Amino acid sequence: MFHLKINQNYLNLQESYLFKTIAQRVGSYKAENPEAEIIRLGIGDVTRPLAPVVVEAMRRAAAEMGDAATFRGYDDGGVGYDFLREAIAGYYAGKGVELEPDEIIVSDGAKSDAGNLLDVFAPDASALIPDPVYPVYVDTNVMAGHAIHYIDGCEQNGFLPSPGDVPPGVEPDIIYLCSPNNPTGAAYNREQLGAWVEWALGRRAVIFFDAAYESFVRDREIPTSIFEIEGARGCAIEICSFSKLAGFTGVRCGYTVVPRSLTADGVKINALWRRRQTTKFNGVSYITQRGAEAALSPKGLAQCMENVTYYLENAKIIADAMSARGIWFTGGLNAPYIWMRCPDGLDSWAYFDKLLRDKNVVGTPGEGFGENGKYFFRLTAFGSRENVVRAMERMGGR
Amino acid sequence: MFHLKINQNYLNLQESYLFKTIAQRVGSYKAENPEAEIIRLGIGDVTRPLAPVVVEAMRRAAAEMGDAATFRGYDDGGVGYDFLREAIAGYYAGKGVELEPDEIIVSDGAKSDAGNLLDVFAPDASALIPDPVYPVYVDTNVMAGHAIHYIDGCEQNGFLPSPGDVPPGVEPDIIYLCSPNNPTGAAYNREQLGAWVEWALGRRAVIFFDAAYESFVRDREIPTSIFEIEGARGCAIEICSFSKLAGFTGVRCGYTVVPRSLTADGVKINALWRRRQTTKFNGVSYITQRGAEAALSPKGLAQCMENVTYYLENAKIIADAMSARGIWFTGGLNAPYIWMRCPDGLDSWAYFDKLLRDKNVVGTPGEGFGENGKYFFRLTAFGSRENVVRAMERMGGR
Repeated sequence: MFHLKINQNYLNLQESYLFKTIAQRVGSYKAENPEAEIIRLGIGDVTRPLAPVVVEAMRRAAAEMGDAATFRGYDDGGVGYDFLREAIAGYYAGKGVELEPDEIIVSDGAKSDAGNLLDVFAPDASALIPDPVYPVYVDTNVMAGHAIHYIDGCEQNGFLPSPGDVPPGVEPDIIYLCSPNNPTGAAYNREQLGAWVEWALGRRAVIFFDAAYESFVRDREIPTSIFEIEGARGCAIEICSFSKLAGFTGVRCGYTVVPRSLTADGVKINALWRRRQTTKFNGVSYITQRGAEAALSPKGLAQCMENVTYYLENAKIIADAMSARGIWFTGGLNAPYIWMRCPDGLDSWAYFDKLLRDKNVVGTPGEGFGENGKYFFRLTAFGSRENVVRAMERMGGR
Repeated sequence: MFHLKINQNYLNLQESYLFKTIAQRVGSYKAENPEAEIIRLGIGDVTRPLAPVVVEAMRRAAAEMGDAATFRGYDDGGVGYDFLREAIAGYYAGKGVELEPDEIIVSDGAKSDAGNLLDVFAPDASALIPDPVYPVYVDTNVMAGHAIHYIDGCEQNGFLPSPGDVPPGVEPDIIYLCSPNNPTGAAYNREQLGAWVEWALGRRAVIFFDAAYESFVRDREIPTSIFEIEGARGCAIEICSFSKLAGFTGVRCGYTVVPRSLTADGVKINALWRRRQTTKFNGVSYITQRGAEAALSPKGLAQCMENVTYYLENAKIIADAMSARGIWFTGGLNAPYIWMRCPDGLDSWAYFDKLLRDKNVVGTPGEGFGENGKYFFRLTAFGSRENVVRAMERMGGR
């Protein structure tokens, strides 16, 4: 119809039928078995309410917006109010990571940043992406027309591929790491992450470190920020979010840390990313930013951590049930996900059907996250305690 | 430092020193004249508080998020809750424009959409952009590496360039129209907009219609949506926002209307844009969406319109003062901007300095919006009534 051509890369996107297919199969089963009480352990979204101090901060901020004396318009610059960037810097200081507030750029979420960051790099960049993985890394690189190399997660490496697993000859520009990982729940320890930093520095590659699940880490050997690793300021960008820490999946606030020292073609990436954001984005709601600030206050963190701990206890119940049944899995500690090998050599869709039919429990077939997920299955800890316990009783591990 | 190359198009961006230079000059003047009471008529941001029903809706929504029974996580799909898309469709119905809710895709603002929309089109697209104009159109096309053609706004065409003003031989893929216009306040009437639609249809070009200031229109001959024009569903995408209607510059909510009938390369643009948004964006805060819904309720619209009317009355005071002094201008009606010819043949920076020094009034030099603004000056109606009246007294028109 138009002269205008579309971005042809979009034609290379794979349609994801994962959640659509799950909904269809569950729907058909329920239609045939209206009495069945189905328990969903496939939810990838938080379910616990926001912390009271966060709600109170947002209600107060909304009231401020209704008063001429305290009304706020544009967040000047659109990279986050000082009060929030300073609160985030304080949160990192608690991890032993020193950041300047200018290195923190606030946004509406980690998903937006993971995709939009590619805007500032050349279209001939190549990406190294683990398989299985959060599908957004692949889709955004397809949209950008980038060459994509995969690195295999598997039982042997505990779904924590190391530089030694990179196929020979592959020299990526961008390395995606997500730890604790979605979907596997596996998390890199200090030494493993150090090996990646060293490898990236040696090859002048940049690591996009997705720390969205950092708030689930309880083991002190697991870094919650890549900047806990020496040298990371020379090779890494960290993407993080309030979605899991504070239950902000429906509130929308994230941030990206770009060290001032990072340059490409002699240009500071921090300045490029700011330019991208101030040109194509106009900041996050003042109300949301006050809520995020409250989440990082001592009282807010304590309240948020009650929810995270609730999910972690769910995860442990699932993990213990798997252990009791002798099923191999990753995650369940330091993460809200349990990534289990399907029993009896079943593939992930066959196991999905069997679990639905025999136990009335719904999970997520691993194949939805990449080829290496074909014989694995994701269970999540975001449901209610009661449902988690009942599901594990049905599955026979408890 | 990295192998990775940057997006070289970013090197072609012009640094904007406009607001920085204004701040510096005002700062120096104040340092030398600490007693001076400076009135700012350069503000491009709303200043009136949010409507009470909007604040109440957001406070209620925040409370819902703190209760397990009413908590909401991800806005499924990230294109806006049904309740808001239906409210927007209702708002358009009030303009006589029928939209399907699926044609409305909610986002965090018109600025984001104006930039991100380019993602779904080919990198060799060419854009036709009015001069003067909101700088984001130019910058985002520079970032995308597009060829940019300008179309001149001038005193002769009332800063409303028509297809007849397109330079010979220019056949753009994308045409940017902003009406009512930022910075000129000029607005296309039905006939003028009809000529653009016809021209676009004849050339198979797409119009990006920026309707951010639609709520200021009081003249029934001025369309508030391009879809009031016959044929526009075959050639236009409309970008709109709650920023000016409801004072949401600090709350962040906008939307883009992509008719289902639009296709390029045989692909529905609505589907491409949805794919872009669901992959690189995760929706707008539930709290914000409830606020936006409230703004479109009968009571909300009435309250929001009180603020818009306040600004329009400011605009009229400025426009009347210009008329009384015999100064040529556009805007002042159906818009919060007055775009005046600088007196005495001064260029816009010389007039800026003179106005600051002689009258202690600050405006925005037209040159900041393009070459054709060199002898023009933007005054805005977003200040307080008192300041607007005093500024016009000082400027001698009242």
